[in-house]
Amino acid sequence: MASTRSTLQPPLEKHSATTLEQRYFVSAQLFAREQQEIFARSWLLAGHVNDIPNPGDYFLANVAGESLIIVRDATADVRACYNVCRHRGTRICENESGSVRILQCPYHNWSYGLDGRLLAAPHMDEVTGFSKDEYSLAQVNVGVWEGFIFVSLEPDQLPLSDWFAPLTGKFSPWNLARLNCVRRITYDVRANWKLIFQNYSECYHCPGVHPALSKLTPYDSAENDLCEGPFLGGFMPIRRGHSLTLSGNASARPVGDVPSEYNHRVLYYSIFPNMLLSMHPDYVMVHQVWPRATDRTLIFCDWLFHPNAAGSSNYNPEDAIEFWDMTNKQDWHVCELSQQGIASRAYKPGPYSSRESIPAAWDREYLRHMS
Amino acid sequence: MASTRSTLQPPLEKHSATTLEQRYFVSAQLFAREQQEIFARSWLLAGHVNDIPNPGDYFLANVAGESLIIVRDATADVRACYNVCRHRGTRICENESGSVRILQCPYHNWSYGLDGRLLAAPHMDEVTGFSKDEYSLAQVNVGVWEGFIFVSLEPDQLPLSDWFAPLTGKFSPWNLARLNCVRRITYDVRANWKLIFQNYSECYHCPGVHPALSKLTPYDSAENDLCEGPFLGGFMPIRRGHSLTLSGNASARPVGDVPSEYNHRVLYYSIFPNMLLSMHPDYVMVHQVWPRATDRTLIFCDWLFHPNAAGSSNYNPEDAIEFWDMTNKQDWHVCELSQQGIASRAYKPGPYSSRESIPAAWDREYLRHMS
Amino acid sequence: MASTRSTLQPPLEKHSATTLEQRYFVSAQLFAREQQEIFARSWLLAGHVNDIPNPGDYFLANVAGESLIIVRDATADVRACYNVCRHRGTRICENESGSVRILQCPYHNWSYGLDGRLLAAPHMDEVTGFSKDEYSLAQVNVGVWEGFIFVSLEPDQLPLSDWFAPLTGKFSPWNLARLNCVRRITYDVRANWKLIFQNYSECYHCPGVHPALSKLTPYDSAENDLCEGPFLGGFMPIRRGHSLTLSGNASARPVGDVPSEYNHRVLYYSIFPNMLLSMHPDYVMVHQVWPRATDRTLIFCDWLFHPNAAGSSNYNPEDAIEFWDMTNKQDWHVCELSQQGIASRAYKPGPYSSRESIPAAWDREYLRHMS
Repeated sequence: MASTRSTLQPPLEKHSATTLEQRYFVSAQLFAREQQEIFARSWLLAGHVNDIPNPGDYFLANVAGESLIIVRDATADVRACYNVCRHRGTRICENESGSVRILQCPYHNWSYGLDGRLLAAPHMDEVTGFSKDEYSLAQVNVGVWEGFIFVSLEPDQLPLSDWFAPLTGKFSPWNLARLNCVRRITYDVRANWKLIFQNYSECYHCPGVHPALSKLTPYDSAENDLCEGPFLGGFMPIRRGHSLTLSGNASARPVGDVPSEYNHRVLYYSIFPNMLLSMHPDYVMVHQVWPRATDRTLIFCDWLFHPNAAGSSNYNPEDAIEFWDMTNKQDWHVCELSQQGIASRAYKPGPYSSRESIPAAWDREYLRHMS
Repeated sequence: MASTRSTLQPPLEKHSATTLEQRYFVSAQLFAREQQEIFARSWLLAGHVNDIPNPGDYFLANVAGESLIIVRDATADVRACYNVCRHRGTRICENESGSVRILQCPYHNWSYGLDGRLLAAPHMDEVTGFSKDEYSLAQVNVGVWEGFIFVSLEPDQLPLSDWFAPLTGKFSPWNLARLNCVRRITYDVRANWKLIFQNYSECYHCPGVHPALSKLTPYDSAENDLCEGPFLGGFMPIRRGHSLTLSGNASARPVGDVPSEYNHRVLYYSIFPNMLLSMHPDYVMVHQVWPRATDRTLIFCDWLFHPNAAGSSNYNPEDAIEFWDMTNKQDWHVCELSQQGIASRAYKPGPYSSRESIPAAWDREYLRHMS
Repeated sequence: MASTRSTLQPPLEKHSATTLEQRYFVSAQLFAREQQEIFARSWLLAGHVNDIPNPGDYFLANVAGESLIIVRDATADVRACYNVCRHRGTRICENESGSVRILQCPYHNWSYGLDGRLLAAPHMDEVTGFSKDEYSLAQVNVGVWEGFIFVSLEPDQLPLSDWFAPLTGKFSPWNLARLNCVRRITYDVRANWKLIFQNYSECYHCPGVHPALSKLTPYDSAENDLCEGPFLGGFMPIRRGHSLTLSGNASARPVGDVPSEYNHRVLYYSIFPNMLLSMHPDYVMVHQVWPRATDRTLIFCDWLFHPNAAGSSNYNPEDAIEFWDMTNKQDWHVCELSQQGIASRAYKPGPYSSRESIPAAWDREYLRHMS
C-alpha cells in the first residue's frame, strides 16, 4: 500500500506544497469520515506488552468511540474484545486497568473467560433455544510489533507483520519489546489531531517554540530517511556528551545496543495514524494520538526505559520526563493557536517551507486514505 | 387502550424476547419523537396534592421542555398553566415552589389570577382593541389520582379517571392521598430513561447489584399480577419481622390499612411513562422519571409517610431514605454502564432471561406508543 | 438605507405591533443568518481610539466568530486585520491587548509590520516562486466615528461617515472622542441579543425591575427623537440636582459642553446592530452587544469620563459604575427569563404597549435586514 524510500536528503520541495484545506480541521462530517476510513480500518497503537505481563492483566483502550478490553489470556496471548456484555449491553470492566480471573458483567453476573467465551449466565438455561456458544464477547484484531500492542476494528485486516514489513528489523537494536513504561502523562489538547502530526514532523518551529531543545539539537539538522508513506521521519544529532533531559545528562543506561553513531542521535518517526516514536540513546518516548473531535485530541505520552534501568547509578527518569513534558506543552500550545486561526474565514492553505517536507508528505498520506 | 391480566404467575417467556435495538437509546431523532409521542401526549406524574395544601401554593414542573406552574387556586382546585407571560414571553415564577396571591410577571408587572386570567396590564388600555380576556395564561390539563397530581400537554386528553380505570380501587388500602412527602432526592443519571424502567422491572440484577436488599427480599420471589400494558408489576415478600431500611426495622407506623398478608410485602409498580410506585408497609417511595437527553435522565425520588408518622415512637424516616438512596445509586450506576455499552457498534439486542418478563412487557408497551 | 425622523413625540402605536416570532430567538439557522446578513455586513463598534493611543498599541475584537487585531500603525492610523498567520493559520496575538513593534507569529516566527505586510519568513526564500508581497495579513475595514472604532468584515462597505451621516454633529457637544474609558465590565448573558436591545429601548419595565433608577428618572418621561431606522432613542429627565449614581451625586466634572437643558438629562440611543450609547452629564456608558448563540450574548460595558476627570474634587467613578452594574444585572436577569419563556410552545407574539414604540421600531429595522 505504501512504499518507503531510503535517502538521507530531503526531496526537492515542490512549489505547490501547501497546508490542508480548512474543512479537514473543522468539518464534523470529515471527522466522522476519518474515524470510519482511518481509525476504524487501521492498526492502532494501544499499549505495550509489558503493561500486561501476566495472564488476567488487562487495560482498556478507547478506539474510535469504542471501549476495548486488551487482556493477556490464560495461554499468555494478548487478546482484545469489545467491553460490551452480550446480555443487555453493559460495560464489563470499569477500571482503566487491572487483573482478573474472569470477565464478569457487574449487572447480572454473566461471566466470560479471558478468551471471551461465555462461561455462565444465570437462569438462561430456562430460555428455550439459548446456547452459550452464541454469546461470546465480540473479538477485535490484535497484534504485537516490537513489543507494542496494536488493535484494529477492521475484521478483514492485513496481518500486522505485513503492515510493518517496510520497517522489519529497522529498530531491532533498540530492543523496544523489553522496555518498561515508567510514566504516562495524558494531555487533552484543543486542536485537531492532524496538527499534532504536522507539528511533530518538523523542527522549523523549534527556534521560536523550544529554546531549551534547540540548544541540544540544532533545529535545521534533521536527516530524514523515510520521506513518503505511512512511516515518516529520521534522526537529529544531539550535542556530544549531552542527552535530551533538563540537566543535559543521560537519564539512564542505554536502552539498546545501537551502532556507535546513534549514541548521539535522537530518532523521530511517525507511524500512521496514531503513533509517534521518539528513540533516544537512554529512553524511548511514545505518543498515542486519539482524535476526540475536530478540535480536540487526547494524547497519551509514555516514557520507556531499560528493564534494569533502576539499577544504574545515573538513573533519573524525571530528568527526561520533565524535559519532554515541558516541550510537549510548548507544542500543544501552538497547535491550539493554529486550530483557532484555521477556523477563520481568512484562512487559506499556506505555503510549506523547505523545512516542512515531512508535514507535506504526511498530508499526502492522509489524503490518500481519505480519497 | 391497554388491558391488564390478573395472574400471580409470570407468562411463559417467548424465546424471541430481546432487548430493544440500539437506536432507541442513542438517536436524537427518536428521543424527540418520544418527547412528542409519549411525553407530550400522556398523563405524567408531577407531584402530590399535599405538596400544595393551601390556595396560592404552587410548584413548577418541567415537562417535555416546558415549565409549568401547578397551583392550588382560590377554590382549592389544582390547576396547571404554562409559565410564560402573554406580553413578552417572560417566565412568571422563578422559584421551584412557593406561595402567592397572584401570578405577577417580574418584567412589566402584568398580573394574573391563580386561575390564569389576566387581571392587570399597565398602559395596555391605551392600545386600541386590546382586551384582557384574550390574554389568559395558557392552561394545561391536570388531574388527581390517589392523591398524585398528573398533568398532560395534550389538549384532547382522555380524563385521568379513564386512564387509571384498570387500577380503580386497587391501591385504596394504602391511603396514598393522605400521605406526606418527607423527603425528595434528585438524581441526574447519565442513562436513557428506558433503562431506568427496565432496571426497576426485574430483580435478576439484585444478587450482584444490591447485596443488602437481597438479604431482605429474595431476588427470585417476585409475583407479578400486572404483566402487560401501561401498568406493570406485583409484589415481593419481605423477611418476617423486617422492613426495607438500613436497620431492618420498620421506620414508621403503617401507611394504610392493608390486608394482613401485605404486612410483609413490598409492591412495585411502574405507571407508564414516568412513574415508579413502591409501596412498603411503613412508607411509600415514588420516582418521577424525566428524560432530558438520549443519555440523560432526571429522577425525583420522594418518600411519603403517614400524616401522623412523626408522632409514633418508631419514626425514623432516614432509616428508609438512606436504604433506598444507597439502592437507587447502585441501580443508576449499572444503568449508566449499560448506556455506555449499548452505544457500541458491538451492541446487539440480547436475550431476556426468564426473570425479565416485565422488562420485556414494558418494551412492548413502549413500542406500541412509538409505532 | 434608513431614514430618521426628528420629533419629540412618539408615533402613534399601531394596533398590530407585537413582539417577534419565536423562531427569531431559538433557531440556530436564523442565528447563522443574522451573523452573515447583519454582523458580517454592518459596521460594528469595537472600541475607542483612546484605548490604543500610541503606535503598536492593539486590542483584539471577536467579530462574528473572527479574532481581529485592531492596531495603531506607525503613521498613527487605526488598522484592523485578521489574527491569522498566512503560513499555517496560527493566531498571531494571544493577549487581549498590548503593545508591539511588529506582529510576529509565535509558531515559526513569520513577522508582519503593523500595516500587515509580511516582513520576514525564515527559509521561505528557498521556496521557488515564493513572494512576500503575496502574504500580507488579511485586512478588515476600519473607521472612527466620534472617537469610537468601528470595523466591518464586508469588503465593499459603505464609508463609515456615510453610515453615520444622519447623526452628523448631533453628539458633538459631548466631546466623545476625547473621553477615556475608566472601566470595562463583561457580562455573559443567557439570552438572545435582540432581547438586550428590546430591553434597552423602553422604560416600561423600570417600575418593577429598577426601583433605584425609577426614583431618579420617572419611567414614563422618555422623549424620543429618533423613532425609526438604525438609530433609535431620545432622552429622559434626571431629577434636579441628581445624577445616575448610587449616591445620587455627580461622579465627575461634565464630559462635554452641552446646552444647559442637557445638564439634567440622560440620553439613550441604540446604534444598530451592536452599540448602546448612554450619555449622562458626568459620564458616558457604552455597551457592545456580541451575539454568541441563540441564547447567549456577551456584553462589554465601558464607562468613559472626561480626560481630566481624575483632577476634579467630586471624582468618584465607582459611584456611577456600581449604579449601572446593579441596573445592568437587573436587566440581564429579566432578559434571561424572557429567553426561557419564549422557547415555550405556549409562546405567541404578544402585544406591545404604548410605552414600547421604540422596541417595535427596532424590530422593524431588524426585519428589514433579515428580509
